[in-house]
Amino acid sequence: MLQNYVSKKAVIHRTVRFEGNSLVLGGSEISEGTYIGFNTIIGYPSKKSFSSLRAMPEDLSILDELSSGAKIGSNSLIRSGSVIYEQVTIGRNLVTGHNILVREGSRIGDNCLIGTGSMLDGSVSIGNNVRIQSGVYLPHGTVVGENVFIGPYACVTNDRYPVSGRLTPVVIGNGCIIGANSTLISGIRVGDNSVVAAGSVVTRDVPPNTVVLGVPARIYITREEYEARRKKHEQGV
Amino acid sequence: MLQNYVSKKAVIHRTVRFEGNSLVLGGSEISEGTYIGFNTIIGYPSKKSFSSLRAMPEDLSILDELSSGAKIGSNSLIRSGSVIYEQVTIGRNLVTGHNILVREGSRIGDNCLIGTGSMLDGSVSIGNNVRIQSGVYLPHGTVVGENVFIGPYACVTNDRYPVSGRLTPVVIGNGCIIGANSTLISGIRVGDNSVVAAGSVVTRDVPPNTVVLGVPARIYITREEYEARRKKHEQGV
Amino acid sequence: MLQNYVSKKAVIHRTVRFEGNSLVLGGSEISEGTYIGFNTIIGYPSKKSFSSLRAMPEDLSILDELSSGAKIGSNSLIRSGSVIYEQVTIGRNLVTGHNILVREGSRIGDNCLIGTGSMLDGSVSIGNNVRIQSGVYLPHGTVVGENVFIGPYACVTNDRYPVSGRLTPVVIGNGCIIGANSTLISGIRVGDNSVVAAGSVVTRDVPPNTVVLGVPARIYITREEYEARRKKHEQGV
Repeated sequence: MLQNYVSKKAVIHRTVRFEGNSLVLGGSEISEGTYIGFNTIIGYPSKKSFSSLRAMPEDLSILDELSSGAKIGSNSLIRSGSVIYEQVTIGRNLVTGHNILVREGSRIGDNCLIGTGSMLDGSVSIGNNVRIQSGVYLPHGTVVGENVFIGPYACVTNDRYPVSGRLTPVVIGNGCIIGANSTLISGIRVGDNSVVAAGSVVTRDVPPNTVVLGVPARIYITREEYEARRKKHEQGV
Repeated sequence: MLQNYVSKKAVIHRTVRFEGNSLVLGGSEISEGTYIGFNTIIGYPSKKSFSSLRAMPEDLSILDELSSGAKIGSNSLIRSGSVIYEQVTIGRNLVTGHNILVREGSRIGDNCLIGTGSMLDGSVSIGNNVRIQSGVYLPHGTVVGENVFIGPYACVTNDRYPVSGRLTPVVIGNGCIIGANSTLISGIRVGDNSVVAAGSVVTRDVPPNTVVLGVPARIYITREEYEARRKKHEQGV
Repeated sequence: MLQNYVSKKAVIHRTVRFEGNSLVLGGSEISEGTYIGFNTIIGYPSKKSFSSLRAMPEDLSILDELSSGAKIGSNSLIRSGSVIYEQVTIGRNLVTGHNILVREGSRIGDNCLIGTGSMLDGSVSIGNNVRIQSGVYLPHGTVVGENVFIGPYACVTNDRYPVSGRLTPVVIGNGCIIGANSTLISGIRVGDNSVVAAGSVVTRDVPPNTVVLGVPARIYITREEYEARRKKHEQGV
């Protein structure tokens, strides 16, 4: 195993495995059966923590002191190159791709998946059983319910009139499906069980159980109709 | 050179160079004149290989045993931070940017280019002389012909009604040009020598020798007309 | 601190700090108070420099000889995994996210921000006080003025008829706001103080002080009207 740097304050269950060359900072807690890929950083200090110093930290031990650590639940798999900031809480059975980013204050439920290169770029809340595909962007304040699927490169925003002094994050309800490369404009709410088609730009609230599509996104069909089409599709009709 | 971990099963031609801090796992084969950037992983085991263990691997030697390796052709340049899974076969003269991902079972022809951050996120087939720009997303099952150009951030999907039990990958024919930040919906076929304009969302098959444009993409001009405009453009007219 | 490789030709101010495992190549200059994250590469040689060898470099000392280095101004913060090529000049107070790419010949002014995963993928010019969010793509030749904001996943192109022999880069004027996941087509000029709405595809020049929106982008309102709406928004009206 290549060398890791593990904080003396960290609580690492004896069954945790490392591929090597990782940093675990501050009072991070990593639960049983979790696996940490190569070149991963756990518990990285936020800019705010850095700023509490007059100068940049001189070595890893000072960086370590700045960090209040991250908590990662059991039986998770964090793949190589990922960076998880301090004050992050992650449930059980998370599986990630490579090079994901989870910024300070984020909370991730149980049984989630986060694909390669995806970013929770601020304090983001993710419910249980959420599957986030690769290259997804969720900015500060985004709230994602339970049992949600987010397709690759979906891009969520949090400022209606950048650069304003008032962020209005997006809320994605339970059971939603967010299509690939879609853009969700700041402040909108996607109702429970609704679907955003791939490539759409969603500028208004989406009612529950509704499929929207296009630029700007318009109501297309109901979720019930979507499910009927999905069944036909699965049967190859 | 910083330390590498190279499997004893790997077959590395004596002319291969490493920048360092890389992992080469399983029976990987790297041919003459190939150059492996810093922090690169070659032959990373798929989730399936991991699952054959009851628990996560305890050290790199077990990870190494799980891997069946990747094959990388001669005179290739794999830049830093890239991750290439096991069961991948790559031809000669591949040049990559940094942090690319190539998942298990993918095949890449000769003389290809794959830009920084691009992902072959599953088993993907790429022909010869294909230029994939930066940040491109190709999911499991995608088939790309020969002499294709794919612009930055093009996003391909493989599930028409996510999350369904039936993936229908996209097929991109020979000689195609796929524009930047376009979205190709699951199941469509882009005919030989066709062009998808930047920012388009392609929801239907594109006939051969055709340029499509818009959301949803509509037929715009022929490839012949496109070539005429390209020539004028090159002359600065 | 984990091991770094620092060129003997590099000029590193005594107040510069490293998290470790980084490469600093060629005659790179890093000014006072700058902080270099884990696994960062500074002064990476361009393909052209590589090609001046008959073969790939055999070790880091040869890579180092190939590099003419990068210059990074004072009080900057380069986060982990970032790669900055040779012949890059960066001003004071740059803050980056993780895994950014800055290719050879780029120039970045003072007081800039570049978010995680963003790429200056060629020789790009960035003025002072520019905030580039995460996942932004700027290809070779792109020119960005001062006091510009670029939202996440904005994608700029530089070839109107790929793959042509004549690149026509995009120019973004002073004071512009470029929305998330927008696509800027090669050759267009965004006039000073103009705004591109999120998700737009901009195919023509945008006059100064104008907000454009849609696919293709059309003139929507003036910047003055945008500012009025922003103020109302900030007041929560």
